[in-house]
Amino acid sequence: MTKFDIIVIGAGLVGLSSAYHLQKCNPNKKILLIERLPRPAQANSGRSAAMFRNTFTSVDNLQLADTSIDFYLNLQQEQGVDLGIRLIGYLWLVSENQTDQVQRHLQKMVEHRVDVKQITVQELKEIFPQVCTHFNKNDEEAQTLGLVNIGTALFGKKCGSLDPDLLAEFYMKGFLQFGGQASFNTNVTDLIIEPDEKLGLNGEPFVWQEARIVGVRVSGELEGDIRASRIVLATGAWANELLDPRGIDGRIKVKKRQLFKVDVGQNKGLSDLLSNRSFNSEGIPPFVILPKSGIYIKPVKEECSFWVGCEDEINREFITVPDANLDTYKAERRYYEFDIHPVLSKYLPSFKDVRPSSMWAGLYGINTLDYLPYVFMECGAIIVCGDSGSGVMKADALGRIVDAMYREGENATAYLYPNIPYDVRKLSYRQRNVEREEWVI
Amino acid sequence: MTKFDIIVIGAGLVGLSSAYHLQKCNPNKKILLIERLPRPAQANSGRSAAMFRNTFTSVDNLQLADTSIDFYLNLQQEQGVDLGIRLIGYLWLVSENQTDQVQRHLQKMVEHRVDVKQITVQELKEIFPQVCTHFNKNDEEAQTLGLVNIGTALFGKKCGSLDPDLLAEFYMKGFLQFGGQASFNTNVTDLIIEPDEKLGLNGEPFVWQEARIVGVRVSGELEGDIRASRIVLATGAWANELLDPRGIDGRIKVKKRQLFKVDVGQNKGLSDLLSNRSFNSEGIPPFVILPKSGIYIKPVKEECSFWVGCEDEINREFITVPDANLDTYKAERRYYEFDIHPVLSKYLPSFKDVRPSSMWAGLYGINTLDYLPYVFMECGAIIVCGDSGSGVMKADALGRIVDAMYREGENATAYLYPNIPYDVRKLSYRQRNVEREEWVI
Repeated sequence: MTKFDIIVIGAGLVGLSSAYHLQKCNPNKKILLIERLPRPAQANSGRSAAMFRNTFTSVDNLQLADTSIDFYLNLQQEQGVDLGIRLIGYLWLVSENQTDQVQRHLQKMVEHRVDVKQITVQELKEIFPQVCTHFNKNDEEAQTLGLVNIGTALFGKKCGSLDPDLLAEFYMKGFLQFGGQASFNTNVTDLIIEPDEKLGLNGEPFVWQEARIVGVRVSGELEGDIRASRIVLATGAWANELLDPRGIDGRIKVKKRQLFKVDVGQNKGLSDLLSNRSFNSEGIPPFVILPKSGIYIKPVKEECSFWVGCEDEINREFITVPDANLDTYKAERRYYEFDIHPVLSKYLPSFKDVRPSSMWAGLYGINTLDYLPYVFMECGAIIVCGDSGSGVMKADALGRIVDAMYREGENATAYLYPNIPYDVRKLSYRQRNVEREEWVI
Repeated sequence: MTKFDIIVIGAGLVGLSSAYHLQKCNPNKKILLIERLPRPAQANSGRSAAMFRNTFTSVDNLQLADTSIDFYLNLQQEQGVDLGIRLIGYLWLVSENQTDQVQRHLQKMVEHRVDVKQITVQELKEIFPQVCTHFNKNDEEAQTLGLVNIGTALFGKKCGSLDPDLLAEFYMKGFLQFGGQASFNTNVTDLIIEPDEKLGLNGEPFVWQEARIVGVRVSGELEGDIRASRIVLATGAWANELLDPRGIDGRIKVKKRQLFKVDVGQNKGLSDLLSNRSFNSEGIPPFVILPKSGIYIKPVKEECSFWVGCEDEINREFITVPDANLDTYKAERRYYEFDIHPVLSKYLPSFKDVRPSSMWAGLYGINTLDYLPYVFMECGAIIVCGDSGSGVMKADALGRIVDAMYREGENATAYLYPNIPYDVRKLSYRQRNVEREEWVI
């Protein structure tokens, strides 16, 4: 087969953005994008809640998200590219006993000029009366659930949702227009590693040989070995699948995430909840994060529905060897019923008697160390992973970083949108230099 | 079954030291040590090269090893406990092209008062004439192997080997004398996690419940569930096996390590090599690390042999799900033949025509981020892992840190031997604060 300059593995949003920026900035290079599924962004990018926010305490996290959001907003608002963006905002409800801690986080965000404001309980009651902010002392349910009265709320303005299919289409179209090639239904089964100076002996490369990843072994639409001067691995939750056999640490853990769709239908309470003019110009409430267990609610105007999810922490297993087929991972009705719903219906009683009409699951590739992505070079390959569920909202910045690393190596400076210099070493692991994110949902 | 105050899982040296220090400092607590194998230190502790050194660039690494070595030396030299220690020293051979970098590492070590000295090539030739320091320009073999002339050498004095069985026996005996109980041939199949306030519902703990690890499920010599107020997990390479199902990140990668034993026998060259009076009072050469591919040689006086190993980096697979039975992992004669021997026999021509008489393999649990161990609390359990092949030489310090964490929690100060305060938070992941180790073999 033809030799390529670059092969990008994975057409999730991070891989797509990487392919796009690489081809845009290196128009003379032959670039191949390889994806296991029939279309782009159909795995975890497509199964995510597709939310974005710039409300982070870690300044690096903030930059990655904020500049990506700016790029997306510019596309939609100035370039006429519809990405389905809805700037509905993020609303964090904060328990009384967490108020001090959150105050510190807020201060940090304000220092970094994040557009975030505090909302008092009094204000909240006025602008979002459906939220239950106070539980009676003898409310046994609330006690059993460990619920604490709401002490304050934070509202992030430059936050919202987008349509991952439309963003994928933008990157894909651009990549192809710039001259890129894509192969779908093609599965990469192995990274090919070879010594710089081949001896033709069985078992190469030996430990004393300098070796590099020089290509990929594929099956499916394409079959056989495809070679390239540079491989970019953007396989998200499946990073370890290709890296483990090569002794390269992807530094991620994989976890199932579930989303439950609740239709408003004829339900008066939910219908009332979906209409709110106090937070944004969409006339719907913001994305709401409850103060307990990382439960969140995304209002979806065009579907007349809510998506409900939960960022659990402990006691839900890490998936050691994630299946290629995401249909393996089912959302569990029990999880909604026993883990989410009791808490959800206390803070938002409109959910009291409603159950999801549909549900689905995806996988997160989580960096539990600091919750920021890794971008690093190993054996000549560029590896991007560990976006910890925020691939959609950081895709543009990560693509630019991958491109900078391609052109200038591990010590490169990337220019994030519109033109913000970023020292890519900070996201490596050898010279990692990022603050741990404290504002994880 | 009886309820224990503490269960320590794993009777490798780190688990043994933890059990010892815990029982010593908490004489009234009922402590159970559980081990899958029939005897202590029979898995990777027993299969390791059993070397120790205090030559590290990372000050935390230095402290963990240096204080452990002091403890071992005191036992052997002052307390009359034979640990089979041989203070043979470590000798690093350094290529000309690595001399500058090594100079920086040396400086750091000297600043931290590590007993390490530089040896010039001229000196080296005199005191260790068997080492080939210079390759002819037309030496094609050397060129193919990418070998560079030796530019300098470093010698670490407070370094050597010990007998892991004897050290294990010391800790085990002490633990039992202090009143500890041990159960061998007992396999922990699961960590039991329960909500603080049980409701008696199926599927607990739910995400809104505070939950803790309250015991272990075992099979083998003991069967069933055993409960304890605190669980200490010291399962080394098998950390993920119990942690993954609970969604706790052990942050390690597992790799096979191989050792090859070469008998001196009637071989004149090797016999000559094994005798050296310039480095230590044992009359044998030091542990030697070659300047290429992490190949090392351990002289074993009592066996009249050399052990040869290699700390390869890339392209040898990480083992995603390590087998409980280490016999699964075979040393590969090919690895000695093609990866190690070509380089070994160039720097030490005495090895030219010799092949190993036996070989074995073990597993490393590697923290590739900074190569220091992790000690942290999660869900009420204390987890110690990621010693990256230096469990033997850091076992004592890690045991003291585990004990301090047990008594005072995550913000404890441990006292390393003889009485050196150590902030245990530095080895956690939430407040991790260690320098990445640069002086990895």
